[in-house]
Amino acid sequence: MSFSPLIDQLIENFRCLPGVGPKSAQRMALHILERDRQGGESLARSLQQAVHDVKNCSRCRILCETDVCKICASSSRDGSLLCIVESPSDVLVIEHTGLFRGRYFVLMGHLSPIDGIGPGDIGIDQLLEQVGQSEIKEIIMATNATVEGEATSHYIADQVKHMGINITRIAHGVPLGGELEYVDGSTLAHAFSGRHAM
Amino acid sequence: MSFSPLIDQLIENFRCLPGVGPKSAQRMALHILERDRQGGESLARSLQQAVHDVKNCSRCRILCETDVCKICASSSRDGSLLCIVESPSDVLVIEHTGLFRGRYFVLMGHLSPIDGIGPGDIGIDQLLEQVGQSEIKEIIMATNATVEGEATSHYIADQVKHMGINITRIAHGVPLGGELEYVDGSTLAHAFSGRHAM
Repeated sequence: MSFSPLIDQLIENFRCLPGVGPKSAQRMALHILERDRQGGESLARSLQQAVHDVKNCSRCRILCETDVCKICASSSRDGSLLCIVESPSDVLVIEHTGLFRGRYFVLMGHLSPIDGIGPGDIGIDQLLEQVGQSEIKEIIMATNATVEGEATSHYIADQVKHMGINITRIAHGVPLGGELEYVDGSTLAHAFSGRHAM
Repeated sequence: MSFSPLIDQLIENFRCLPGVGPKSAQRMALHILERDRQGGESLARSLQQAVHDVKNCSRCRILCETDVCKICASSSRDGSLLCIVESPSDVLVIEHTGLFRGRYFVLMGHLSPIDGIGPGDIGIDQLLEQVGQSEIKEIIMATNATVEGEATSHYIADQVKHMGINITRIAHGVPLGGELEYVDGSTLAHAFSGRHAM
């Protein structure tokens, strides 16, 4: 059906990207070849470099190409606050609010015994070592509001509670702009149990 | 705001792909780095190879890495039928129907004086030379149903009409499954003027 093995291969390879089906992969491949070969070359170079050089920050486990990431290396960060998240994109979204000035620890996943992911795989040893050595006063659990995220939060809280550190969990409830009518039952239950004085 | 220049660059480079905004670009970059580095490497290699090796078929101008594309090289194709299209994806979609067994000529664009795209840029000289030398009996115009596509079709038809070749245009009208209520006026006008006996 096709006219070029190289193009077929390129279309197939574009499908490794999330949300890219056969039609978009074809559109991407032909767009690059017909209209933006320079962009294609830059993308290829950048991909190769990132795949080769990007590893995990030795402190917070986020993805970066240096030994210690920019956030961990910054002296303007508040070392008494540690926010625990599941993935680098969580850090990006929190940083985007500009409200949190502490440091992060990125689990790069969550506990999932069924997939064989235990505490060692999400860096709990490293976390405990850091918490023991530093001046952390509060740990903010910002794992996802999923069963696995909750379980991971509870597990970590259990491990650090004897260290005399405040352990908090970000609030769950009705999102701003959300209408009660469209909010699911579990979220609403959280919103009620988490109510506070006005 | 960011934690790694290499990742920022990768996100930026993903944006050269059609339909990829900042959010999807970030998702793609992190997906590759967190979960599919091998896929990323294959994609990079494949991109580099395609950008470097893919050129135009010397006969039909489609994109391919060999001198003559598979379709032009095939001996099972009917050399008396030539279908003229604007882009390689048009060839793919026609091939997908499995109905057309002739050969193609790919303009790689359409006439557009306002953008400085004239007959030379869409390979009209090459087309006329081929039409003059070969056993073509019918030219099927399958350029897009846009102002530029129509103008390009008419220009080509003008150039070849003295050669004693049948020149046809694919039919325009109501698409199958289309309800009249939702069909635009120009399409409906085409459908009426192109009506045939039942």
